[in-house]
Amino acid sequence: MLKFSTLSRSCHIFHPKSFSDSTLKSETTQELLQTLGFIKRSQAGLFQWLPLGLRSLNKLTGAIRNRMDNDGKAIEVSLSAISSKSLWQTTGRWNNSELFKLKDSKGKQYCLTATCEEDITDLMKNYITSYKDMPITVYQMTRKYRDEIRPRGGLLRGREFLMKDAYSFASNKEDAFATFQKLDDTYNKIFKDLKIPFVSAWADSGDIGGEFSKEFHLIHESGEDTLMSCKHCGDVSTLEMFQSYPEKDGRYMGDVSYKYALTKDHSTLICFYFPKDRQLNWNLALNVMEKDIDPTLRNKSNDHVLEVYQNDNEDIMFSKILRVMDCRLNSKSNFPDFPLKKYLKNNFGQIDDVSIVDAQENEICGKCEEGSLQSFKSIEVGHIFLLGNKYTRPLNVKFVDKENKNDSFVHMGCYGIGVSRLVGAVAELGRDAHGFRWPAIMAPYKVSICTGPNNEESLQRIKQIKSDLLENSTLHLQNDILNQFNEKLGIGAKIKLSHALGIPLCVIVGPKSWPNVEIEARGIRWGKKDQWKKELERRGQDLNWKCTTENEDGIEKHLVPVEHLTEVIDMLLKDM
Amino acid sequence: MLKFSTLSRSCHIFHPKSFSDSTLKSETTQELLQTLGFIKRSQAGLFQWLPLGLRSLNKLTGAIRNRMDNDGKAIEVSLSAISSKSLWQTTGRWNNSELFKLKDSKGKQYCLTATCEEDITDLMKNYITSYKDMPITVYQMTRKYRDEIRPRGGLLRGREFLMKDAYSFASNKEDAFATFQKLDDTYNKIFKDLKIPFVSAWADSGDIGGEFSKEFHLIHESGEDTLMSCKHCGDVSTLEMFQSYPEKDGRYMGDVSYKYALTKDHSTLICFYFPKDRQLNWNLALNVMEKDIDPTLRNKSNDHVLEVYQNDNEDIMFSKILRVMDCRLNSKSNFPDFPLKKYLKNNFGQIDDVSIVDAQENEICGKCEEGSLQSFKSIEVGHIFLLGNKYTRPLNVKFVDKENKNDSFVHMGCYGIGVSRLVGAVAELGRDAHGFRWPAIMAPYKVSICTGPNNEESLQRIKQIKSDLLENSTLHLQNDILNQFNEKLGIGAKIKLSHALGIPLCVIVGPKSWPNVEIEARGIRWGKKDQWKKELERRGQDLNWKCTTENEDGIEKHLVPVEHLTEVIDMLLKDM
Repeated sequence: MLKFSTLSRSCHIFHPKSFSDSTLKSETTQELLQTLGFIKRSQAGLFQWLPLGLRSLNKLTGAIRNRMDNDGKAIEVSLSAISSKSLWQTTGRWNNSELFKLKDSKGKQYCLTATCEEDITDLMKNYITSYKDMPITVYQMTRKYRDEIRPRGGLLRGREFLMKDAYSFASNKEDAFATFQKLDDTYNKIFKDLKIPFVSAWADSGDIGGEFSKEFHLIHESGEDTLMSCKHCGDVSTLEMFQSYPEKDGRYMGDVSYKYALTKDHSTLICFYFPKDRQLNWNLALNVMEKDIDPTLRNKSNDHVLEVYQNDNEDIMFSKILRVMDCRLNSKSNFPDFPLKKYLKNNFGQIDDVSIVDAQENEICGKCEEGSLQSFKSIEVGHIFLLGNKYTRPLNVKFVDKENKNDSFVHMGCYGIGVSRLVGAVAELGRDAHGFRWPAIMAPYKVSICTGPNNEESLQRIKQIKSDLLENSTLHLQNDILNQFNEKLGIGAKIKLSHALGIPLCVIVGPKSWPNVEIEARGIRWGKKDQWKKELERRGQDLNWKCTTENEDGIEKHLVPVEHLTEVIDMLLKDM
Repeated sequence: MLKFSTLSRSCHIFHPKSFSDSTLKSETTQELLQTLGFIKRSQAGLFQWLPLGLRSLNKLTGAIRNRMDNDGKAIEVSLSAISSKSLWQTTGRWNNSELFKLKDSKGKQYCLTATCEEDITDLMKNYITSYKDMPITVYQMTRKYRDEIRPRGGLLRGREFLMKDAYSFASNKEDAFATFQKLDDTYNKIFKDLKIPFVSAWADSGDIGGEFSKEFHLIHESGEDTLMSCKHCGDVSTLEMFQSYPEKDGRYMGDVSYKYALTKDHSTLICFYFPKDRQLNWNLALNVMEKDIDPTLRNKSNDHVLEVYQNDNEDIMFSKILRVMDCRLNSKSNFPDFPLKKYLKNNFGQIDDVSIVDAQENEICGKCEEGSLQSFKSIEVGHIFLLGNKYTRPLNVKFVDKENKNDSFVHMGCYGIGVSRLVGAVAELGRDAHGFRWPAIMAPYKVSICTGPNNEESLQRIKQIKSDLLENSTLHLQNDILNQFNEKLGIGAKIKLSHALGIPLCVIVGPKSWPNVEIEARGIRWGKKDQWKKELERRGQDLNWKCTTENEDGIEKHLVPVEHLTEVIDMLLKDM
């Protein structure tokens, strides 16, 4: 006689024995990931992956690896998590307060890798000698470490996280850019495979540096990032990058704020003027000055900047001053008094009509100068950079070119996806009052089979359905069927758990409906929503397949004879 | 027209462009792993995994996971590499000099996990509440860290390594032991899957602690460990565990060495006497005393122990002394003077005829008391422990038992395989003058296809052979065929490289022999060596399959028509 195996009982201890509707509704997504047994927080910003969470993480990893290999033509490596102080000093990144640092018993200093530009460049230096060795892209899926002062949002901002980081090496700018484009394309495919809504946006290069960069975001109101898009030209950028113009020119009559800065040589005082109710956008300000600003003074007070300016210039009377006016200002705006008592009007310069504040909704797009802007909150999950020779120059990675010369630096790009963060972000995205809703590609299981009383008959039916699915589904469901639950759970509790865990399809084998079987479809169809309906129209009659539409909980139901179950499941899963 | 893809050229940059026969012969195995592009050392004891090495590592990981899931009935989790000081203090293991320790920006202290007994016990405490939740076994494949003072032997003793560590939890001793046996059995299957010679040996529990333990070793003269086995009863143990008797009783007439110890309460001085030319075996000495020895005095001088004894006992005249005599001694042995001037003969105890020194070859087995002993060098690759409640007691992990009482501690076991170490050990084991010889299950590729001139015809033939292998092989070779080499390599260099990399079968497509194809078999048949010969006898004539036996380099060759190639490859691979 078949028995519910006592050996596999063990899986269940990570699933909650019970949970209330109010838990499902009231907990944050990151709390719910713990309540339902996906992860468990061990310390601030550090998590243990439980079987369910690890399943989702591994499936996502597999999906990303597939695209990186086949579309990105990248080769997988795996670097140590321990990097050396000397490498990070060479590139000037050792003094980063977010690096976890450690010493060995001999007193030698190391850091845990937060990202691997230094290590990969140092590694590839051994293998890249000629232009013929490039272009080449390598990637890895390894844990990274960041000593976040305020870890938050569960998987969204942890201190240890799984990252897919890729690095490209090319002998010239054109090849480097072509690889950047290929990886951009690969990233689009990766996020399309997940069948979730995402956008890519031009972005600031931040601490990684380099020539330019693009971010990949999931749109969600809980996100920490703000993206702007233009209704006319469709341009999407991060707030840092978005140049905008006011709806109507220079009508601002309120108070004017100002922020002082110095050129890198400290010879010129730069005064940025902008409306008091707006936020200076440092990136736009930098661009106006073609990056000729001393960055160390960014967070200093205006008084401090002024003091440095006065100290570093012998005769302040003859030193230069540049005024940069945000385009929202005009002669009627209420400017503050200028703080220097002595100056020569001749040494004054002025830049007008530039946009140096964060864009706002309904302003005009700085790119097309036509459309009006909308903003939305988002979660950043990927970032790709064209690096130029930011790392190959300090680490001295040159190659022999076609003319047999050995004096050019290798051109790099780097490409990251926060894999564990993406699990947290997708959980957030699909979450509703009943729990999670995972895309099929990264659901811990694609299908659950729930049955009523745990008797011989039920077990035989589950066994039959499972073996039919394994044998006949075109979707390779070997690792995707959940059919063992805590023995104590009734059929209703099993269904509720299956829905809460976010399994896209729940097959209900009830004694009454047999040999018909019910499927509850919980997976979200983000994209083409009507494809399954066409299939239902086309094949419904042949298969005796009925959609009984949504029940009071908003869950879509299907009724189908058991002999056609596999076929219907395959059709339904394709959209999820 | 088909072209050797420029995109995949990139793979080759990690393979050596050339290497000499003397490199293959003279480098240590761990150097050769670097020369041939499997790994690259970044710092002392730290390695970057290159594509070839990562392939082997991942295949080994997959093989182990398969057995852990299906035979060990274990569930995979994945814990953080960062553990907390407080946990390790609770179990008394914080003051281990091999722990990598670090502080965060707030000054909180952590360690990198060297092993995960503390963390897993702390985690499972959240999920185990009742005897019904057990037995359960969880495992993970994660990197571990040990601040080895002298990292050596490449992958054999690194400071960062991939470990498969499993932990079992049971409500009683019987279940705990049954799980230990199941995992012992699973480990045997894992090593049998690798088709390499291994032994398991009873061993000391060391720092992990617990009731008893068993180690898994690969036999190799380069190993750091010594195992003893009995020719009669077949018992295999580590040197620490092996009890032995001299070939002939009590014939020792030389000088006698001695080592003092105290009982835990310091009331009794224990004097171990043994032949001067032998090594006291601490583990055997402990067993004689039923572990009633103060371990903190182990490495102190005899004088120091004596001083502590005299200080801690009010009147030394009345304190107890126990003499433990190794069975090799007798009245004719040359004993040293007893150092205490005052003592009462009445307080003297004596234990005779026990074995307290390391066993030597040709002595008599302490277990069967019949067979004589042999010793051999080996590399430890796995270790399993029955832990009892060593960790659950300090971390207070109790459960509700059948009588509804909540006062027993959970019984644990732990089970480790050094996965990256195993890659290094198997490399060592199969290494010969031509390079590596991997077992098929963990070879970076199972089959290479080497062709002569890189012309259209060759490319078509490779394409045909590859697609035939992918379609018709029963061994799922999707990820196992190497058919792209550096374009500049001639056919001889390709074959040599394939052999050096340790690929079990090399298919040679030469214009002369076509439509016959040559296979060079480099994989080792550790086990059943003659199985393929039976197949050759049985099917040879049908398939027109000829074995041209070994060439002057000791490499076995086969000639077979291309239409039967897949079948022959499948047969040959099954033994490798």
